[in-house]
Amino acid sequence: MNRYLEDLTVGDRFELPPVHVHEDELLKFAREFDPQPMHTDPQAAAEGAFKGLIASGWHTAALVMKRNAEARILGDTPMLGLGVDKLEWPQPVRPGDTLQVITEITKITPSRSKPQFGIVAMTTTAYNQHGETVFVAHPNCWVPRRPV
Amino acid sequence: MNRYLEDLTVGDRFELPPVHVHEDELLKFAREFDPQPMHTDPQAAAEGAFKGLIASGWHTAALVMKRNAEARILGDTPMLGLGVDKLEWPQPVRPGDTLQVITEITKITPSRSKPQFGIVAMTTTAYNQHGETVFVAHPNCWVPRRPV
Repeated sequence: MNRYLEDLTVGDRFELPPVHVHEDELLKFAREFDPQPMHTDPQAAAEGAFKGLIASGWHTAALVMKRNAEARILGDTPMLGLGVDKLEWPQPVRPGDTLQVITEITKITPSRSKPQFGIVAMTTTAYNQHGETVFVAHPNCWVPRRPV
Repeated sequence: MNRYLEDLTVGDRFELPPVHVHEDELLKFAREFDPQPMHTDPQAAAEGAFKGLIASGWHTAALVMKRNAEARILGDTPMLGLGVDKLEWPQPVRPGDTLQVITEITKITPSRSKPQFGIVAMTTTAYNQHGETVFVAHPNCWVPRRPV
């Protein structure tokens, strides 16, 4: 089932299932996409500023996307990102962390250039098991209007 | 060798080696992190709005990070993201595309809260083989000042 612009409301809030950060997956992602010792080398990371491995911020972003995609917030309607207004990594993500992702709809704007679409602004936030915010992003998605 | 805040100049520009987008890697990333038919199912994608598979925007972001990390713009100094001011995916990335990534330093601000650091604002842009912009991000990185 598709969900359309008319099915969404500012304030809609989705608490997504927790995501566990495994050390082997952290290393694998970083070795492929963000090969820096703080992400790829446990020994060097232990001696570095963070006293241990930290996840690539882009890995955290990808894990948050995974939860949002799996949640099918828009049903069968694709979640098509136009961009992200702002993205922050306030605290590092470490192996063994469990992240809780919460996504909320903050603004719904009918598109002027594409009348059959609207832009849905969301805030998606990830917290670790200590309640610290480790990721915040404000994505904008294209969502179709209900066909007449 | 580490590069410090004092070694960087607004306008420094890095043309990074091209990155080729392989269909199998596109599918693999999407099936793990962004399981939506436009990214994971060639048949469904061919019948969809984009007339073919498109890469997850987070895959594009990760490929751009890969080139930036490999370029060692800061030498041995880690490229530590504080956040991204804005991130856009103006055009889709498709299997077989070759992306050219260009990163430029746009602003250097000594930190008030951490006097031994500064914040370096960059713009990193990816173009496809047709010269179309497919990704733009404005990341901010922590960079240490040269020790006295």
